[in-house]
Amino acid sequence: MTDSLDALEATIRARRTGDPDTSYVARLTHKGRAKIAQKVGEEATEVVIAAVTDDKPGMVGEAADLLFHLCVLLADAGLSLDDVRAELARREGVSGIAEKAARPA
Amino acid sequence: MTDSLDALEATIRARRTGDPDTSYVARLTHKGRAKIAQKVGEEATEVVIAAVTDDKPGMVGEAADLLFHLCVLLADAGLSLDDVRAELARREGVSGIAEKAARPA
Amino acid sequence: MTDSLDALEATIRARRTGDPDTSYVARLTHKGRAKIAQKVGEEATEVVIAAVTDDKPGMVGEAADLLFHLCVLLADAGLSLDDVRAELARREGVSGIAEKAARPA
Amino acid sequence: MTDSLDALEATIRARRTGDPDTSYVARLTHKGRAKIAQKVGEEATEVVIAAVTDDKPGMVGEAADLLFHLCVLLADAGLSLDDVRAELARREGVSGIAEKAARPA
Repeated sequence: MTDSLDALEATIRARRTGDPDTSYVARLTHKGRAKIAQKVGEEATEVVIAAVTDDKPGMVGEAADLLFHLCVLLADAGLSLDDVRAELARREGVSGIAEKAARPA
Repeated sequence: MTDSLDALEATIRARRTGDPDTSYVARLTHKGRAKIAQKVGEEATEVVIAAVTDDKPGMVGEAADLLFHLCVLLADAGLSLDDVRAELARREGVSGIAEKAARPA
Repeated sequence: MTDSLDALEATIRARRTGDPDTSYVARLTHKGRAKIAQKVGEEATEVVIAAVTDDKPGMVGEAADLLFHLCVLLADAGLSLDDVRAELARREGVSGIAEKAARPA
Repeated sequence: MTDSLDALEATIRARRTGDPDTSYVARLTHKGRAKIAQKVGEEATEVVIAAVTDDKPGMVGEAADLLFHLCVLLADAGLSLDDVRAELARREGVSGIAEKAARPA
């Protein structure tokens, strides 16, 4: 089964250089790094609001929006979720207590 | 191969009810929903800063932190990345133009 | 001379119960606390982006947007900048080192 | 009577080049623009959380933290609240409907 996060990234890669008139991804990408980053900040705020009001469907929907825009942002820098997965796997090698000790205060 | 995001979620599920003295996940979870949500907001801000300063290693590291805390937040609400993946898959069924039309202005 | 922050708050108080068709403040207020809070989060992200890209006119403009929406948010809760000023004055009574010691880590 | 926002800015200006060991403002300023901006993002998230949970004392305290860090950020760029006040005064000259029309969608 294909991971829908991978499918999402494939879609984003296919569309980001497409027609801004028909593709949201192309339009947002065309606006540049700062505008994409701004959307990541906005969606994170919406996740926060859904979380503290215990709006579970809202949390799922806003988390989907956040991951979507995070992938657009990563793609804009030539990065992908696999880079993030590799970083998480690297950290996973660190034991629980060591990980804790390594975290900033 | 195991997806490191799934491995991350398994680790979070295993640790969240653990000892706050030895587990960051347990300690953060113990502080409650608002504090976890706050961390998601903070990490998103760090992703934004790394992105607009074109700090690619920073983007990967902060995106990893963001996903980590997003998973802790989802777990706190009894949700998981699979719920978010299902939502993304549902949207993926919608065509590009329709998706665009469905997005809020 | 009138402080333009006070003038801003007076304008917000006058408009928030006005006609949503002609007043942005009334329209935003009508959407409720969460939507106003979301705008505060969005404008803060824009301040952050302007700051790290050293866009000084952008910092001024986005800080104005942030204060504007913060005042709409405070007004929605029956609060005002004077409440915030009183809190800042209370803290100012605390000496530098004590203030530092009192801050969360 | 002195506006406590002006008093806050005077304190910040006096301390920002001071000893990082005894002054929080000096220590934060020493860390650089991105770290100050990050604090503005963090405090905004805390304002958002206090607002949507209707924690009024929290809103006042977090709004004070937000304004404090916003002033540190403005000072780091050679700007002040007076620059923001001037921008707000400039906008106030614009009528309600015109202002609305001028706002981004």
